Amino acid sequence: MNKIRVSVAGGSGYAGGELLRLLLFHPNVEIKQVTSERFYGKLLHKAHPNLRKVTNIKFSGLAELEECDLLFLCLPHGKSMGNIENYKKIAPKIIDLSGDFRLSNPLDYDKWYGHPHSNPAMLKEFVYGIPELHREEMKKANYISSAGCNATTVILGLYPLFKEGLVMEDRTCIEVKVGSSEGGNAASESSHHPERAGAVRSYKPTQHRHVAEMLQEMSFGKKLDIHFSATSIDMVRGILATSHVFLKENLDEKEIWKVYRNAYKDEPFIRIVKESSGNYRFPEPKLLIGTNYVDIGFEKDPFSNRLVVISSIDNLMKGAAGQALQAFNLMYGFPETLGLEFPGLHPI
Amino acid sequence: MNKIRVSVAGGSGYAGGELLRLLLFHPNVEIKQVTSERFYGKLLHKAHPNLRKVTNIKFSGLAELEECDLLFLCLPHGKSMGNIENYKKIAPKIIDLSGDFRLSNPLDYDKWYGHPHSNPAMLKEFVYGIPELHREEMKKANYISSAGCNATTVILGLYPLFKEGLVMEDRTCIEVKVGSSEGGNAASESSHHPERAGAVRSYKPTQHRHVAEMLQEMSFGKKLDIHFSATSIDMVRGILATSHVFLKENLDEKEIWKVYRNAYKDEPFIRIVKESSGNYRFPEPKLLIGTNYVDIGFEKDPFSNRLVVISSIDNLMKGAAGQALQAFNLMYGFPETLGLEFPGLHPI
Amino acid sequence: MNKIRVSVAGGSGYAGGELLRLLLFHPNVEIKQVTSERFYGKLLHKAHPNLRKVTNIKFSGLAELEECDLLFLCLPHGKSMGNIENYKKIAPKIIDLSGDFRLSNPLDYDKWYGHPHSNPAMLKEFVYGIPELHREEMKKANYISSAGCNATTVILGLYPLFKEGLVMEDRTCIEVKVGSSEGGNAASESSHHPERAGAVRSYKPTQHRHVAEMLQEMSFGKKLDIHFSATSIDMVRGILATSHVFLKENLDEKEIWKVYRNAYKDEPFIRIVKESSGNYRFPEPKLLIGTNYVDIGFEKDPFSNRLVVISSIDNLMKGAAGQALQAFNLMYGFPETLGLEFPGLHPI
Amino acid sequence: MNKIRVSVAGGSGYAGGELLRLLLFHPNVEIKQVTSERFYGKLLHKAHPNLRKVTNIKFSGLAELEECDLLFLCLPHGKSMGNIENYKKIAPKIIDLSGDFRLSNPLDYDKWYGHPHSNPAMLKEFVYGIPELHREEMKKANYISSAGCNATTVILGLYPLFKEGLVMEDRTCIEVKVGSSEGGNAASESSHHPERAGAVRSYKPTQHRHVAEMLQEMSFGKKLDIHFSATSIDMVRGILATSHVFLKENLDEKEIWKVYRNAYKDEPFIRIVKESSGNYRFPEPKLLIGTNYVDIGFEKDPFSNRLVVISSIDNLMKGAAGQALQAFNLMYGFPETLGLEFPGLHPI
Repeated sequence: MNKIRVSVAGGSGYAGGELLRLLLFHPNVEIKQVTSERFYGKLLHKAHPNLRKVTNIKFSGLAELEECDLLFLCLPHGKSMGNIENYKKIAPKIIDLSGDFRLSNPLDYDKWYGHPHSNPAMLKEFVYGIPELHREEMKKANYISSAGCNATTVILGLYPLFKEGLVMEDRTCIEVKVGSSEGGNAASESSHHPERAGAVRSYKPTQHRHVAEMLQEMSFGKKLDIHFSATSIDMVRGILATSHVFLKENLDEKEIWKVYRNAYKDEPFIRIVKESSGNYRFPEPKLLIGTNYVDIGFEKDPFSNRLVVISSIDNLMKGAAGQALQAFNLMYGFPETLGLEFPGLHPI
Repeated sequence: MNKIRVSVAGGSGYAGGELLRLLLFHPNVEIKQVTSERFYGKLLHKAHPNLRKVTNIKFSGLAELEECDLLFLCLPHGKSMGNIENYKKIAPKIIDLSGDFRLSNPLDYDKWYGHPHSNPAMLKEFVYGIPELHREEMKKANYISSAGCNATTVILGLYPLFKEGLVMEDRTCIEVKVGSSEGGNAASESSHHPERAGAVRSYKPTQHRHVAEMLQEMSFGKKLDIHFSATSIDMVRGILATSHVFLKENLDEKEIWKVYRNAYKDEPFIRIVKESSGNYRFPEPKLLIGTNYVDIGFEKDPFSNRLVVISSIDNLMKGAAGQALQAFNLMYGFPETLGLEFPGLHPI
Repeated sequence: MNKIRVSVAGGSGYAGGELLRLLLFHPNVEIKQVTSERFYGKLLHKAHPNLRKVTNIKFSGLAELEECDLLFLCLPHGKSMGNIENYKKIAPKIIDLSGDFRLSNPLDYDKWYGHPHSNPAMLKEFVYGIPELHREEMKKANYISSAGCNATTVILGLYPLFKEGLVMEDRTCIEVKVGSSEGGNAASESSHHPERAGAVRSYKPTQHRHVAEMLQEMSFGKKLDIHFSATSIDMVRGILATSHVFLKENLDEKEIWKVYRNAYKDEPFIRIVKESSGNYRFPEPKLLIGTNYVDIGFEKDPFSNRLVVISSIDNLMKGAAGQALQAFNLMYGFPETLGLEFPGLHPI
Repeated sequence: MNKIRVSVAGGSGYAGGELLRLLLFHPNVEIKQVTSERFYGKLLHKAHPNLRKVTNIKFSGLAELEECDLLFLCLPHGKSMGNIENYKKIAPKIIDLSGDFRLSNPLDYDKWYGHPHSNPAMLKEFVYGIPELHREEMKKANYISSAGCNATTVILGLYPLFKEGLVMEDRTCIEVKVGSSEGGNAASESSHHPERAGAVRSYKPTQHRHVAEMLQEMSFGKKLDIHFSATSIDMVRGILATSHVFLKENLDEKEIWKVYRNAYKDEPFIRIVKESSGNYRFPEPKLLIGTNYVDIGFEKDPFSNRLVVISSIDNLMKGAAGQALQAFNLMYGFPETLGLEFPGLHPI
């Protein structure tokens, strides 16, 4: 079989690096070009030290991009939308990892991103990139917008409950704990190690942009509110969402288990994690480092109608590069797990 | 002035060690005895290595306790209630740091602790140990039960809002991030470093015992539900509570600021932390290590009636030893901050 | 091709878990049995949570081991030597990951392990398990003793210099920084998170057992002293050795580079890491997590004849399971890197 | 008694912040001015969040410095030497925390700092700032240059051995493990949390500037070489030095203990830490956070004449602000420990 020739625009960042790691080991992929203005002409491992001795590819410039089968856009948020018409000329298929085409309603950009979208017509061309929700569309899609990392964690954790109408949606309160890689690879005062180490920083108590994605995917036509906060902790990779939802009917844990089982039993990347003993009774982000899994657990409050749902991913994998590659596999009819088999490490 | 002669029963644990550190530098205190069966006869610094060269006191046995002015009980939960009548003979004043006398309603022990209280008559003799709520009672008290660490963090964060009836109490959802010292100094599989390091562990999604204290102190006669989850992160000391509360009326941040200011403006250990820029816009537990402060911040969600309240303490200080010493100062009419002046460190 | 049927004795520890992760994805391996008395009858993922959804194998008992092609021994140190005659009946080939057969001179067990060896005759049957030093012997070996993790790090870092006689061997001083997984999966007071977190613990300033391996492999018939200390830091996986060696002749960095290049240019798992700028100028253990690489760098002191050699591995991979699988590949004539392709992650 | 009026030039950095924390609680000190160009006009707690509610002092500009009794210089390295004549007009006594006046031989600046000293005449006016070595000179000094943090750790660890001529000086190899606060408060790519977290970075294998101080203080007229490397680990505060020294005569541990005891028995800030059991058998930097202690331990290699000396400090305290305040106390005849009583925390 001919390999798919892919290029990566903006390949020096963390999501780009993770994507390159995956692509280099994907049996059906040939990497054509990887761009970075900052590392122009240098070997990939100058930006991604884990790729030393793995590849001799060098960074190209964005302006030098040549035709290819599929183009991954790993540019900073806001950089894809302005040039999307050019990128369409370079490749018939595009997977964008930024937030630029995640929201189908242009007005949501005004509300959540604070500025209007510069190419609203293109928004409806993009499939929202969570394969577990949009698998069939992806198989036929040319344009996929990979979902936000926090959005992916929360949506996959709560989707079956919202879909089945089991909870009072507006009462949902969510708190995510996130690592420092979520902020990207640009150094700043807030990422300075003596300040960031040991931090439990309430970096976004309200108004996080990813909430717009949650509302889009889980409102099913209703007007919805979701109450979300994000806290940074001393961790590099990983997200753990603790979601408090309130059941309309007082289901017990067995019934809730069934709901999740029905929704996800055939999903290769979703695991229900709920054990009665041990250190890993519930999802744990460190076990997911480098993997494409979403781990989901829950506990029913015996004193109320509250259900606590715990969901976790690696923000650079299922929250970025891994999910993008999963979408890629779907687009080309490859086994969905191809190149995504790494099971994670323990201890770590 | 004659110094107050105090003894510490159960002085080899983390809260006991922290209390000893404070007592050794308190100008009006003379430590008479410190007990530990495990470290019997050894110097304090064998259990508390930070006290090397600071003191030559040795551990005694619990059975050897002699009369003193005030007895601190730092025994494991469940060990104070059975022997309280004996301890009353040793000292006219007692401060208990365990959970044994925190709840005034004996039935709460059945519900939250899973067993009946063995001396329910004594429960009403104890003042619940948050000075900011029970200062006047403490001044006259002989028995004080120091409050739970998570309970202290949450109650002080939300008290003014609940007191003033500003929120829909039953909708409150709280997520605390806690460190490993909260679990005490006994090693176990769950505290084994390769497992516990880097963990984001949902150790108590529902039914945490400290909720009983929150309900006791914040229900004001109403029947109340509070939705609380606790997650362990890779931190030794510290608690940060992220509380989602829902305002009855849509107050703005200035009005909320006033509520807190009115409630806490004279409190020596409470700081309102809410800045528009910098790394420390909101409370941060690492800045509180070794201090008795409670830092409280908040952010109003502009898209809903949600208010996110962020509160933080050092669990071994304001959540245990520091708060106990604050109570001690009140009992004897000393300045409330005596021996509690340490401001914390930065960077750390 | 028929798959090699392997069993793992003592498969619930950290090295065993890592080996199982590798074996499960090795194309030429079929896992027959995995033993653990503690987890007897349970699924592998109860001990190794990263293997959830990856395998349905359950733990067997040690006494139930059946014939197989090759047996991996991952038992605690001291447990292999006593039963080796039994294990030889189970499998014609054995790879032992413990220290029981690493030293060819039985007297070294008295000196470094503090007890005599119980089966000294078997010592000479085992090939010492660093493939880079004993590749040809391994290809014909039936019994391989996988090398110690600290020994592997130091030996591979210094071997070319000692082999070529370039340094004053007796002046060598080495300091390794190690993670907590090196101590195994049994909880103890010394591994209790509040004590172990943030620690920089001089756990073995002198007399580390792995020194015996260094002397065995690097003395080339001379009487040698090597000065070694080990310090535990707040890290789960990884070893970094800082070795001070003193050159007989004042070679410059280019000449030293040539020495390493000559020695290692065809080694698939050795990388020389020495860059003039960036965060990763020298080896960094976190980049090696999950990989079988040895990264080696150096810097010549311009003010003296000192050369500082920096070498690093993942103690559970190149220091245990990975190196054992590398030896396995050699024994069967498979490509040496088969099943060991994971390049590591960045950031992490 | 009239308080000493002190000012701090360059008070927004980490050493400056720590010094301010100490000065604010020193009973004999009145802070007159604190300068920072970056935080000009702002409250101290904008730079030092731990000082919130502790003080209302605001930052002044360097050009606005008024006369005072003693001036602390906490400026970046290289900024004191050029303006020292001006600072002498402002205050009759100066304590400089930078490296600008540590080396009495101007040529050492060429060799170790890579540039000539701009005011070599002033070098001999300054007393080198380790009180344990220069106490009597300090009592009469007007100018003190506070010692480097790594230099302090190593010198105090090895001084008695070198002084007594017990070791082969030239064979000494030292490896220090340091935290990120040593690099100061300016963010950079190398301090970006996803890169710096979990790092074991060989940041200075050779040629560290602090070696010049070690040679100056420990050569006693001989020509000396000391072999020093520095490795950054995932820690904010703290230094631990592992020093390999080689004894001329084969002293046992009891004799070595006597050497240290004789040298340091009256030192208020030096503790010999050497226990036969427990987690804290040797010095541990985390126990020293916030304290002015130097902890020193050792182990004699029974297989050779090597002695491993382990010494540890808090780089911002005994390695900077604490040692400067200790010197201040000596200059004014105050008890040496005044304002430096904090014993450190456990657990931490």
